[in-house]
Amino acid sequence: MDRIPSVSEVQWQSFDILKDDKRKIKGHSSIIVWLTGLPASGKTTIARQLEKTLYERGCHTYILDGDNIRHGLNKDLGFSKEERKENIRRIAEVAKLLLDAGIITICAFVSPYKEDRETAKRLVEEPEFIEVYVKCSLEVCMQRDPKSMYKKAVLGKIKAFTGVNDPYEEPDNSDIIIETDKMTISESVDRIIRYLEDKGVIEELSNIPCTKEIRQ
Amino acid sequence: MDRIPSVSEVQWQSFDILKDDKRKIKGHSSIIVWLTGLPASGKTTIARQLEKTLYERGCHTYILDGDNIRHGLNKDLGFSKEERKENIRRIAEVAKLLLDAGIITICAFVSPYKEDRETAKRLVEEPEFIEVYVKCSLEVCMQRDPKSMYKKAVLGKIKAFTGVNDPYEEPDNSDIIIETDKMTISESVDRIIRYLEDKGVIEELSNIPCTKEIRQ
Repeated sequence: MDRIPSVSEVQWQSFDILKDDKRKIKGHSSIIVWLTGLPASGKTTIARQLEKTLYERGCHTYILDGDNIRHGLNKDLGFSKEERKENIRRIAEVAKLLLDAGIITICAFVSPYKEDRETAKRLVEEPEFIEVYVKCSLEVCMQRDPKSMYKKAVLGKIKAFTGVNDPYEEPDNSDIIIETDKMTISESVDRIIRYLEDKGVIEELSNIPCTKEIRQ
Repeated sequence: MDRIPSVSEVQWQSFDILKDDKRKIKGHSSIIVWLTGLPASGKTTIARQLEKTLYERGCHTYILDGDNIRHGLNKDLGFSKEERKENIRRIAEVAKLLLDAGIITICAFVSPYKEDRETAKRLVEEPEFIEVYVKCSLEVCMQRDPKSMYKKAVLGKIKAFTGVNDPYEEPDNSDIIIETDKMTISESVDRIIRYLEDKGVIEELSNIPCTKEIRQ
């Protein structure tokens, strides 16, 4: 019988498609790559180039960043310590869902508080989360200042701006450190790619006979 | 030069991997399939069988339901009208992200208020969202009562339980109506699959020479 099951027919539910099934049809594993760093340190730039590189290798990716989170899911949140905490909590929960869907999930957020980054990390199994510290001196970040946010913060037009009038707690045990004032974008992305290869999240290119084959 | 770009180097950002790119490597389009209906109407059962059927056809899917949302992202929310509104708002925002990642996203939530379902729908382009009314008489839902929730609600042990002491606003313009007290699971899922084929979200099986080919 094929009707909606009654309580006793729980067996039916074992047909669920699990995380590993979802990874399998994508041809790679899934992981959360969490980029933290000062505003204008280069997180989004690295995230986008990393996504592009992974896409060219046939990987299924998604970037969570201020653009798609602060104007959508978290548009009700401001920048107080408590709201930043809730911001990161929700992002981490969404990242966990994407991870569960088999997606290599790249998160690019200032995420200034150590405690909040730890909360994000603890939400998933240890090998499923890597923290990348996108390190850049405050001086260089202030010189870049693509959206003139530092300028406005210094002039007091923006309150609670990380690096100027709000703290950034430096990571002390990141899996990877990218120094964007010393390394090129390619070098930075290559380092993350190599890490993902070493951890077996994606295959090393030399092991892939041709892209078509791994997509089967 | 490959350094982090300055403000003037915005050209670089046009390398972004867009929604259509993400759909392309999955071999199908993405859409939100929103299942609404009374508790125990069969939403989760339909969602799971739909996911299984899609998976067997090589599709990339994800289910959002009470299990992964109420214990995670929305664990801070209760069941008042305002909290239900915020519950659905957040779910819809997450569904939009998954849609953007190229995933066929199946949402299984009571979502009792018409206004909240409309909010979810309006968040994305019209063809990217279908509402499926999982229709079942209250009597049958109360007979099924897999988690004894109706029983507890009737005894006053649960407050604001939809169907007993909280309203369910029936949809009047759903894209699909599934009557789970009259149709089998197969019939229900087939109807959704046919709809997805008709709308070009997934290929009709007769058009697919073999599963391996569409995954390339």
